[in-house]
Amino acid sequence: MSDLDPSIAARVTWNAAGLVLAVVQDHSTNEVLMVAWMNHEALHRTLTTGRATYYSRSRDTIWVKGETSGHHQYVRSVSLDCDGDALLVRVDQVGAACHTGERTCFHTHLPVEEPVSRRAHQ
Amino acid sequence: MSDLDPSIAARVTWNAAGLVLAVVQDHSTNEVLMVAWMNHEALHRTLTTGRATYYSRSRDTIWVKGETSGHHQYVRSVSLDCDGDALLVRVDQVGAACHTGERTCFHTHLPVEEPVSRRAHQ
Repeated sequence: MSDLDPSIAARVTWNAAGLVLAVVQDHSTNEVLMVAWMNHEALHRTLTTGRATYYSRSRDTIWVKGETSGHHQYVRSVSLDCDGDALLVRVDQVGAACHTGERTCFHTHLPVEEPVSRRAHQ
Repeated sequence: MSDLDPSIAARVTWNAAGLVLAVVQDHSTNEVLMVAWMNHEALHRTLTTGRATYYSRSRDTIWVKGETSGHHQYVRSVSLDCDGDALLVRVDQVGAACHTGERTCFHTHLPVEEPVSRRAHQ
């Protein structure tokens, strides 16, 4: 059992594995830092301890971001999306969010072509 | 078969359903607008047509954002995260991103308690 408020748990559309997606955004720079998953307990701890806390699918365990790296995420706000299956967690990020040492996990750019419709739009 | 560049397809960690998560961010305001899914063909079209294109799991079909609402997303950049299972798509958003008419899909705030550790951090 988790201590998550039942009224909050009921608003989330948990997937078949009992998880909800979390998109993590830096509160001061607005960078999208990473995505992760939460179960009931991870969301409960995120909402009540002020430290972003996730569920590791590979290790089947709760983890507090930064518990080993020191790169904590202090929670500023948590919002649920319109269909309830994703959370936006805004945080104060200490150090690098990515385990590679990069500031964000989204550091590999893919090539985008420039179509006529795009140029016409600008 | 999809026309997605095989060298790009190989860099993505597709899930068991052949999909990758897309986090969509407004290029000018940095708001996180929505999350959606892409298959090979949706990513190919997103990278080559300049219009953000997704895969609907419920309808099992490709959809171009805005094709019915007019609320198109013109693609500015696409980045892959460190473990390859999420994309960050930065767009010029026309109108509201959410089907509810809200600017972003993340418009339901959940209550965050203010722990001592958080106050000490600030």
